Amino acid sequence: MTDTACSATPSTAPAVPEPSADLLLRAAAVRRAAMALGQCSDAERCAAVQAMARALEEDAAAILAANRADLEAAETEGLAPALVARLRLDAAKLGGAIEGVRQVAALPDPVGRRQLHTELDAGLVLERLSVPLGVLGVIFEARPDAVMQIASLAIRSGNGALLKGGREATRSCSAILAALQRGLAVSAVAPDCLELLTSRQESLALLRLDGLVDLIIPRGSNALVRFIQDNTRIPVLGHADGICHLFVDRAADLPQALAIALDSKTQYPAACNAIETLLVHREVAAAFLAAAIPAFQAAGVELRGDATAQALGVALPAGDEDWRTEYSDLVLSVKVVGDLEEALAHIATYGSRHTDAIATTDAATADRFLAAVDSAGVYLNCSTRFADGFRYGFGAEVGISTQTLPPRGPVGLEGLVTYRYRLRGEGHIASDYASGARRFSHRPLPL
Amino acid sequence: MTDTACSATPSTAPAVPEPSADLLLRAAAVRRAAMALGQCSDAERCAAVQAMARALEEDAAAILAANRADLEAAETEGLAPALVARLRLDAAKLGGAIEGVRQVAALPDPVGRRQLHTELDAGLVLERLSVPLGVLGVIFEARPDAVMQIASLAIRSGNGALLKGGREATRSCSAILAALQRGLAVSAVAPDCLELLTSRQESLALLRLDGLVDLIIPRGSNALVRFIQDNTRIPVLGHADGICHLFVDRAADLPQALAIALDSKTQYPAACNAIETLLVHREVAAAFLAAAIPAFQAAGVELRGDATAQALGVALPAGDEDWRTEYSDLVLSVKVVGDLEEALAHIATYGSRHTDAIATTDAATADRFLAAVDSAGVYLNCSTRFADGFRYGFGAEVGISTQTLPPRGPVGLEGLVTYRYRLRGEGHIASDYASGARRFSHRPLPL
Repeated sequence: MTDTACSATPSTAPAVPEPSADLLLRAAAVRRAAMALGQCSDAERCAAVQAMARALEEDAAAILAANRADLEAAETEGLAPALVARLRLDAAKLGGAIEGVRQVAALPDPVGRRQLHTELDAGLVLERLSVPLGVLGVIFEARPDAVMQIASLAIRSGNGALLKGGREATRSCSAILAALQRGLAVSAVAPDCLELLTSRQESLALLRLDGLVDLIIPRGSNALVRFIQDNTRIPVLGHADGICHLFVDRAADLPQALAIALDSKTQYPAACNAIETLLVHREVAAAFLAAAIPAFQAAGVELRGDATAQALGVALPAGDEDWRTEYSDLVLSVKVVGDLEEALAHIATYGSRHTDAIATTDAATADRFLAAVDSAGVYLNCSTRFADGFRYGFGAEVGISTQTLPPRGPVGLEGLVTYRYRLRGEGHIASDYASGARRFSHRPLPL
Repeated sequence: MTDTACSATPSTAPAVPEPSADLLLRAAAVRRAAMALGQCSDAERCAAVQAMARALEEDAAAILAANRADLEAAETEGLAPALVARLRLDAAKLGGAIEGVRQVAALPDPVGRRQLHTELDAGLVLERLSVPLGVLGVIFEARPDAVMQIASLAIRSGNGALLKGGREATRSCSAILAALQRGLAVSAVAPDCLELLTSRQESLALLRLDGLVDLIIPRGSNALVRFIQDNTRIPVLGHADGICHLFVDRAADLPQALAIALDSKTQYPAACNAIETLLVHREVAAAFLAAAIPAFQAAGVELRGDATAQALGVALPAGDEDWRTEYSDLVLSVKVVGDLEEALAHIATYGSRHTDAIATTDAATADRFLAAVDSAGVYLNCSTRFADGFRYGFGAEVGISTQTLPPRGPVGLEGLVTYRYRLRGEGHIASDYASGARRFSHRPLPL
């Protein structure tokens, strides 16, 4: 769950430096180690993640002490309370994180799956197999527990990782990484597969490691993600905005629609899959808002409406800026629309292609909405808060992506693998097919 | 798209201008039309492509006349003979291209495939469905026939396209596009789904149309592809380099290995899947090269070798620059290696992760090579020339990608679609699961 959508925006964008020779050497070492890891068996990678969990348990005291030192420094420096809360790692939180590492070990292997199997001709057989990406570059803000999660996901899926935690979590991250590497040292996986970057310069230069890093995973504020997307040619798994909508159609079951709206906004307002804008069909706007305004008020939600919504009782005004804003807070903008097409046009203009829902009992309207909204998730009569890798049944969530190309939406372990074609022949050459001496069979074989 | 670690960007590259208001409007119009196209049925899209083929036939005389005018201008301007050859469109070539359009219409629909189907809870059902990407940006050098191919692939897969042909093919491309749009006009698909860009400024500004264009497909020289990759945040389907290797192992069937080497180099040396470097195991180098040197000589191939290869009869020297070079010509570099690991290290250092092959009869060596080489295609005992969408049985080839993330390798129609999650509920809200009042079933349903 990406629950970090509400942290502060860095003031000025720093320049991205060229990687230092030292960073290039360390990244190349991670890549070499990751190539070997990519050839480890499922059992070896599972055992390695289990060993990481054991080492974390054994080092618990040291990790908690390091975290206390980070917390003391944070207090001295006057770190914002929200950041301090995310930085804090007590015995219970650490225990939960270690349990999470064990759960990652138990996930089904994403590597070595045969996705395609075709006989091109007698004795010439093509396979497409899932393989690790290679090396992940992971950039966190605070949250030392995320280091354990992402490191275990990386190793489980056969990938190395360059990890950069927040500066305020340096001691915690170092202690955690030392434990993880000690765990790997007694496994078939080289400790070099995980490397901690410590300076801000290094985390910026990471964005320039094309060819050594295959995927960047940012875990932090929208501003962090946007900065990274704008400053790297490496693919980025993440999303800058989560501007999600619920459209209450004229054929909606209004009490059900209200329950969905309340859940979508208030169940965890800081989450990227919470709604920011409610679109209400003109024909039911009066009836719906009569019930919704007091219900949202009771839930502590500030409503901001367009002129029609205000005429129907919404106290505060909403304008163009509101439609573009991810509040990540107990604020909801409300717009009354004339019909489905106006709702679709609003979502196309202001949405971030994350998750958008409709409440309706009309099948044709539902089908049109589900076909026409070009978002990673399109929902009918349920809360947008279901947009989550765990809730989708993936067993893990690497992130939620709002890019167009796959992986899109909530991404599980399969977002950390790619594929490779393997062709086995018996001396087959292409000129025999060009000349017509041989012909392709293209016969599908069982997967 | 990240072939080389941290290579310097050429500073002489032309500046990429901001899109003009006119271009933004036209691109937005294509996007709107494409959104409607994305909701057309399989039958409607097939019929539209058939209508495109018919219109091309009807306009054949006008298209050939436009091409003759382009050719006359090219002669006046002294265009290179290779470019003139690619520009030329005679009746036979046009007929072949129209036949290709009809074949695209007959391809299986890539849209609407259910890739995942899970009951999250009673009445709450998740699907993952393939959907069109949206709008393709296609940049060609010369080759007016490619416009017909890519336009039909775009429409077949439910995508709009902004097409930019080479300046020297302007008249041909305009005539072709007029025919294609006339065909669409009598179909369910809006002619606005296809738009021709005509100026160089527009083709550069296309690279800045993030949010309006979902995928860039470059069809041209390595330099063109690299420039595009370096100057856009839009994903690029393509490859800058095709530096492919064949490793002749000590356990190779030497006559078979030689046949594979000759085919891989000479069957079409300008292709990206032709080999550029032959790696030969020391123990068989003398025997292999004794047969290979005269065979390559007879085929008109210039061999360049390292010191050991030269000592064994290769006439010309090869150095570091050779290992990095895609000759795209009848030139082959030869290196003698001490063992499999040295071959793997060479490929990891100099390869472009396109397609690499081994010739061996030793199963363990084959398995190690196929697991350790991190390229889109890894081959055993067959020619690298099989790396091709048609030869793989995809029915079409959009391009070959050497990026790490999917789509990778030869890409068929599936490279022009992405997916969307669709969740249908009956008033389900997330807080019921957070509270424990309800539990997820995560029950797989039939695809």
